[in-house]
Amino acid sequence: MVAMGGGLDLPSREAENGKELVVCALPWPEEKVESGIKALKEAFRDVEVKYFHTKFANGKVEPVDVSDDILQRTAYLATLFWLPPSVSSIPSTKLIQFFSAGTNHIAQHPIYTDSKIPLCSANGIHGPQIAEWVIMMDLVHSHGYTKLYDAQKRKEWDQKMGMTVSDRVGKRVGILGYGSIGRQVAHVAKAMGMDVIAYTASPRKTAESKHDNGYIVPGTGDPEGTIPSTWYSGTTKEDVHNFLEQEIDLLVVAVPLTKTTTHLLSTPEFELLHKSNPRGTYITNIARGQIIDQKALITALEKGHISGAALDVTDPEPLPKDDPLWDAPNVLITPHVSGSTDVYADRAFQVLIENMKKEKSGGKLINEIDRERGY
Amino acid sequence: MVAMGGGLDLPSREAENGKELVVCALPWPEEKVESGIKALKEAFRDVEVKYFHTKFANGKVEPVDVSDDILQRTAYLATLFWLPPSVSSIPSTKLIQFFSAGTNHIAQHPIYTDSKIPLCSANGIHGPQIAEWVIMMDLVHSHGYTKLYDAQKRKEWDQKMGMTVSDRVGKRVGILGYGSIGRQVAHVAKAMGMDVIAYTASPRKTAESKHDNGYIVPGTGDPEGTIPSTWYSGTTKEDVHNFLEQEIDLLVVAVPLTKTTTHLLSTPEFELLHKSNPRGTYITNIARGQIIDQKALITALEKGHISGAALDVTDPEPLPKDDPLWDAPNVLITPHVSGSTDVYADRAFQVLIENMKKEKSGGKLINEIDRERGY
Repeated sequence: MVAMGGGLDLPSREAENGKELVVCALPWPEEKVESGIKALKEAFRDVEVKYFHTKFANGKVEPVDVSDDILQRTAYLATLFWLPPSVSSIPSTKLIQFFSAGTNHIAQHPIYTDSKIPLCSANGIHGPQIAEWVIMMDLVHSHGYTKLYDAQKRKEWDQKMGMTVSDRVGKRVGILGYGSIGRQVAHVAKAMGMDVIAYTASPRKTAESKHDNGYIVPGTGDPEGTIPSTWYSGTTKEDVHNFLEQEIDLLVVAVPLTKTTTHLLSTPEFELLHKSNPRGTYITNIARGQIIDQKALITALEKGHISGAALDVTDPEPLPKDDPLWDAPNVLITPHVSGSTDVYADRAFQVLIENMKKEKSGGKLINEIDRERGY
Repeated sequence: MVAMGGGLDLPSREAENGKELVVCALPWPEEKVESGIKALKEAFRDVEVKYFHTKFANGKVEPVDVSDDILQRTAYLATLFWLPPSVSSIPSTKLIQFFSAGTNHIAQHPIYTDSKIPLCSANGIHGPQIAEWVIMMDLVHSHGYTKLYDAQKRKEWDQKMGMTVSDRVGKRVGILGYGSIGRQVAHVAKAMGMDVIAYTASPRKTAESKHDNGYIVPGTGDPEGTIPSTWYSGTTKEDVHNFLEQEIDLLVVAVPLTKTTTHLLSTPEFELLHKSNPRGTYITNIARGQIIDQKALITALEKGHISGAALDVTDPEPLPKDDPLWDAPNVLITPHVSGSTDVYADRAFQVLIENMKKEKSGGKLINEIDRERGY
């Protein structure tokens, strides 16, 4: 156990005097979580917080030394990947808040399969930084910035090189998967003067069905789902094709990876995009590499059927040094980092705080996992 | 004279039948203005349009061969830098629409000094693309993108390199000069979750005074001036310093170059920024190079008093190959191209159309130049 300094470890006498215990088992050193724990203690005067620094090494979660007594008293557990060994070890736990967007990684654990303790994800906290990555890449492409950067390194002042800009006003962004990330891309794209169209598997005909019911970073996203000028839906190839035919300038791939979405974009889809928008669609993928048929993507780039692609995810990862994708034209690759931000932990603590408030007031929890559905 | 094909050159018989003549003297070849002229003719069924391709070479406007007869009949003139030789040559002209943001370049011409023909600028049409440049550069910096781009060229997949992102939510952008460009930066920055503060020389205490009365690209900008959480103003050093002390994360330099704004940002200002925000202010300059004391900027970059700078303008331009600015740390330089966009002419035609409507209806012209004030 790594107990944090700075007064975070309250004496157990006070805990016995009715303070509820929040156990945090997280993979960050003390300084990364100090502000989050401070916010937690400011939100609830009557909680005690115990912090454990968990480690993930060689593909395994290293054991964390949390005493039986502490587990017995744990009212709330905040974790990224660590879980107590059994359901019976945490009899007082009212809520487990994961600091990850999903819970697939613990779906075989007895606490998932055999308990009824509410499990909540931190879905929503990735929206701002990943949306920024998408917007940045679209601008780097449309402003021809990499050429200008290379010219700077050669100390070259070449105005003609910067004269190929196509600004975003009136352009169309098509968002394949309108979750928290897609909604924040929509928010920023609309501010830039773009037209936004959305696609989801399930239809969203009513105002209520368009709402974002997950965690929303304040001031961001599209809480009511009112930004898209048209909202497409369906689960068949035809439904997806109907969406892709809408003369899309920027296609944002933001669907989860499932059997249906594996190689969702392949040669027929790139040909459709090309036919619908001969200027060339720019594709960004921040979801999973396997959603795009990468061999077909390389061909589409070589043929100029799409204007380019920015990929934060590839198939496989890491992308091997001899993969032909590195040499494809008009492709920008980053190593699965778009979700990174220095306020990741702070933001996840906000979800924990909101959910503790909901739990105490009997409100509807945010991002509660439906164990049957799996998310 | 370069007469345009495609039916743009209507027979003069029709002009004599009451059609008003619009003369366009612009520096673009036919295909660049076709859509703009089409929009003009769709907006006004009763106009005749004559197009002249003007050229600017060796620092001089080449003479344009427009016949006296045409000049006599010119009701509206759209131009970038060319003007007829005298006031008396255009007795029927009701409005001259410049396709540039300013009119300094013709302020000594008799039509400027001796006529009362309304002159209007195209101020406002640069907002979207320059705001995109600012947002792009701020993201390239905050997401550490140039390192990732360099790694891609080496075919390197290095996740740690991408883990230094500081996303924009809750960060503060300070906009020095809240005109059309600054307002569109504000619009996009707010959508990214940033706090916006503005600075103008003149105070804007009333709702009316906050309005943008110039041309606004539809769907962009801050027409009512309601985005800034605080609006600073004044003309003294103290006033500027008070603004710079507000813990600014992104400082957008968007003031015109005047005696007062020359070297407005120098060592004392960089020190103030550093003291107010030890995380480091990022500075973007899309105005004029001389507004920043470039030698002091290099020192501030070397000392880490600011976190970096993105400069589309330098002092002088082009920046000489041996200028020390090229080697300063954390500086991104582009060759004065942020105003470039492929829809520049189309957008300027929209201002012309709006102003012709205003002129015909007796409404207040957009962007009319105050000859005394000079803009």
